[in-house]
Amino acid sequence: MAVKTSEKLHQLREVLAEVSDLSRAALLLEWDQETYMPPGGVQGRAEQLSTLLKLAHVRLTSDEVGHLLDDLEEEYADAPFDSDEASIVRVTRRDYDQGRKLPAELIAEAAHASSMGRPAWEKARHEADFSIFAAALEKNVELNRRIADALGYKERPYDALLDRSEPGMTTGELAAIFDELKQAIVPLVADIARHAGAVDDAMLYRGYDPDLQLSYALDVVKRLGYDLERGRQDLSTHPFSTGISPGDARITTRVSRDFFNECLFGSIHEAGHSMYNQGMGAGIDRTPLWDGASPGIHESQSRFWENLVGRSRPFWRHFYPSLQSVFPDSLRGVDEEAFYRAVNKSQPSFIRVEADEVTYNMHILLRFELENELLEGKLAIKDVPEAWNARFKSYLGLDVPNDREGALQDIHWSFVGFGIFPGYTIGNLVSAQLMEKVRADIPDLDAQIEQGQFATLLGWLRKNVHVHGRKFTPNELLERATGKPLTAKPWIAYVRKKFGALYGLSDRAAG
Amino acid sequence: MAVKTSEKLHQLREVLAEVSDLSRAALLLEWDQETYMPPGGVQGRAEQLSTLLKLAHVRLTSDEVGHLLDDLEEEYADAPFDSDEASIVRVTRRDYDQGRKLPAELIAEAAHASSMGRPAWEKARHEADFSIFAAALEKNVELNRRIADALGYKERPYDALLDRSEPGMTTGELAAIFDELKQAIVPLVADIARHAGAVDDAMLYRGYDPDLQLSYALDVVKRLGYDLERGRQDLSTHPFSTGISPGDARITTRVSRDFFNECLFGSIHEAGHSMYNQGMGAGIDRTPLWDGASPGIHESQSRFWENLVGRSRPFWRHFYPSLQSVFPDSLRGVDEEAFYRAVNKSQPSFIRVEADEVTYNMHILLRFELENELLEGKLAIKDVPEAWNARFKSYLGLDVPNDREGALQDIHWSFVGFGIFPGYTIGNLVSAQLMEKVRADIPDLDAQIEQGQFATLLGWLRKNVHVHGRKFTPNELLERATGKPLTAKPWIAYVRKKFGALYGLSDRAAG
Repeated sequence: MAVKTSEKLHQLREVLAEVSDLSRAALLLEWDQETYMPPGGVQGRAEQLSTLLKLAHVRLTSDEVGHLLDDLEEEYADAPFDSDEASIVRVTRRDYDQGRKLPAELIAEAAHASSMGRPAWEKARHEADFSIFAAALEKNVELNRRIADALGYKERPYDALLDRSEPGMTTGELAAIFDELKQAIVPLVADIARHAGAVDDAMLYRGYDPDLQLSYALDVVKRLGYDLERGRQDLSTHPFSTGISPGDARITTRVSRDFFNECLFGSIHEAGHSMYNQGMGAGIDRTPLWDGASPGIHESQSRFWENLVGRSRPFWRHFYPSLQSVFPDSLRGVDEEAFYRAVNKSQPSFIRVEADEVTYNMHILLRFELENELLEGKLAIKDVPEAWNARFKSYLGLDVPNDREGALQDIHWSFVGFGIFPGYTIGNLVSAQLMEKVRADIPDLDAQIEQGQFATLLGWLRKNVHVHGRKFTPNELLERATGKPLTAKPWIAYVRKKFGALYGLSDRAAG
Repeated sequence: MAVKTSEKLHQLREVLAEVSDLSRAALLLEWDQETYMPPGGVQGRAEQLSTLLKLAHVRLTSDEVGHLLDDLEEEYADAPFDSDEASIVRVTRRDYDQGRKLPAELIAEAAHASSMGRPAWEKARHEADFSIFAAALEKNVELNRRIADALGYKERPYDALLDRSEPGMTTGELAAIFDELKQAIVPLVADIARHAGAVDDAMLYRGYDPDLQLSYALDVVKRLGYDLERGRQDLSTHPFSTGISPGDARITTRVSRDFFNECLFGSIHEAGHSMYNQGMGAGIDRTPLWDGASPGIHESQSRFWENLVGRSRPFWRHFYPSLQSVFPDSLRGVDEEAFYRAVNKSQPSFIRVEADEVTYNMHILLRFELENELLEGKLAIKDVPEAWNARFKSYLGLDVPNDREGALQDIHWSFVGFGIFPGYTIGNLVSAQLMEKVRADIPDLDAQIEQGQFATLLGWLRKNVHVHGRKFTPNELLERATGKPLTAKPWIAYVRKKFGALYGLSDRAAG
């Protein structure tokens, strides 16, 4: 074609804008499905989503995009790595190549298996009977394996799936990190168990008016920096956040009268995700770069605000007086220190999404190991519950009472999506790794938080994380922001220090 | 292509399903924009909508569809006119031909002019100064004219625009109907004015708790037959209904503490639209047939329930006791007959959307005449306010105080959309024309309504109107349902009888 080369980037961006608009429309449809859609809308919604996502995929993996990328790679070969132009070409190439490697029939088969797996999983979970779900899981494992084969990998099939969600990470690297975590956490959990009496969280169950909880939570996230002119909060069964455009990054939450943590910490968590979306650069809007660097990096932002800020002592030094005045009855006689301790109570439990900071990563390790073994044929489907329960006992010291609270608890295995779970642990680790650097750059951080000032902190995250969107891989981003690739050390140091102090552990256990 | 002919209909339906899914996703995006979208979402939403609608248009007017239609017209030449197959081919052909006649540049220019016209209109309306809007209106008139030229017409440019929204109707037919209406209404309005004291609606302004109004309205529309498993009600500044899929037909409403009519009658109106969507046949889902036969026929369903049912004496015989028990203070000392009279008060007023049953069509006549004169160059832009005011005086006897309450009141002229207004009057006339036949078919209709039984009535509308969707043109539908094409006579007889009785008019005036 006789167009000028700068025209070609314009052409590519036109296509990418369409793909982005289709994907964003799909996000809104999904948001609606979880919040307001009437029950009768299910079938039509599935059809609409399927059409939008199919069109986005077809457009992104079209020959036109391939030809444009070929030309643009040459044109921008010398452009700075971190320029918008070079990054758009580089990241689009990655998505394009991965998309082209997956045959349409395989995608369709995986989508079909996922939609068949859902009701089977629901029934099995409801009846706490793994055998009802076994055939669907077997099919999903096979499809995960075929997807890994189609994408290609050097060492282990899991590498292919992991690289798709956490680009550049390998199963080997992650296994080493999980091993380091296991060495640190298992004894820490045991130590905490021996000092369990040190923390009392009974006041969190004393009853909190749901409407007051919601308005308090909304006020808190607003003060953290979540822009409500470009976001909103609604109720849904499973809280989530969604970035529909730079001006529309929403959160949902749920609220329980009987347990305080759910609404406030859930809201902070989702607002952490949405502040990430609200901070992405204008130059990458409507491109594949306008998204989190990875699910793991996205989770780092939610966990940062939820745990490293929201469950910190300076945070409650600032907020506790106002909280106590909103809930005077439930918090009568509870001082700030007692409340801080309560929201940090650590105790092994069965359900991942309810796990505390210390034990959470062990839930992920378990799933990471089982997914790998299933994928490599080392674990038979029928043996999954037994393997689950044995590992659970070994990592967290608990006997799983039934499959509903064990191998059937997560929705993830009902669809074809191995390789997603590690992102949760990566998120935890990255949040601490970033915080270590934040503290070096903002020495008076705790004092700022105590005064309810979060602008400097948010500014740091904006500059070092948010603005880049998906321009860098997780490790590229971490190298630039902290000087190191992913490491578990800051997180291990953080939990040892925090929970060592909370539970009055000896230096041996805590160090 | 060597495919079997039955395969071709399947192929066409695949394309139409995609087009439908894109359009339905756009409807959800628009619903969200009017209900929950945060202010910052405006730009992104405009981009998303533009992409979805463009892709739908491109797909529908593709060469592939043209070739399929050519083949299918031959294949289904002998299929029954009212079969799904023949109708899909026939209606898709109409949409395809109209779509192909409009060059992409003209569509883009019209979209651009519409988005520029909106702020100009808003500013002009805010300042009640028509001159601010004059240039934008001039551009829109020119574009309406160019669209009419591109579509083609036999006699008057308005024919082309009218045929697009109300297929088969001509400007000449409509002008004759409006003339008949004018002859009947102008003297009736004058007669009512001389007996204005006969109706007192002061109790409608006594204050009604908004939450109670909303729940009462929702209860009423549910009892009329609006299925809330396949619909929902939300608040919006401008009430509307939207059919996102057979299982998802929503309404919005607004509520005023100070004026009773808005919430209840608005809800019934929108539920009338949504019951139409909920009644369309399963065989036409995800085709161009899954929609109202025309905006006018759609409006007939909303007006039918709002006015012919909701403002009828038997309706209030049934509902008034429960209404009075919900609002005992505001309705103290008001009996059923007084309330029935109040909600039917007729009085000339400036704003179309607030007009009563009798005067409403005169607001439309005025716009129909001005649009025609603008399109044919018989009226200069600068003379629009004067022409508006003169006609308003002649039809409704009022002096328009300013352009905000005159020529600037409607949003319609801010975008390129001449030919839409007549649908409102067609809706009124059709509702009465259908009711005449309903009464012949269901002799005890009033007794059923008095007992709160609406199933037989809804069943009649389902069978004779709803199930067909867009299979027939308005006149085809009316011929099948009532034996006659569109006529003003039933509506004129209805208002003469009802308002003659309400205002105690002499036989001369009322007959």
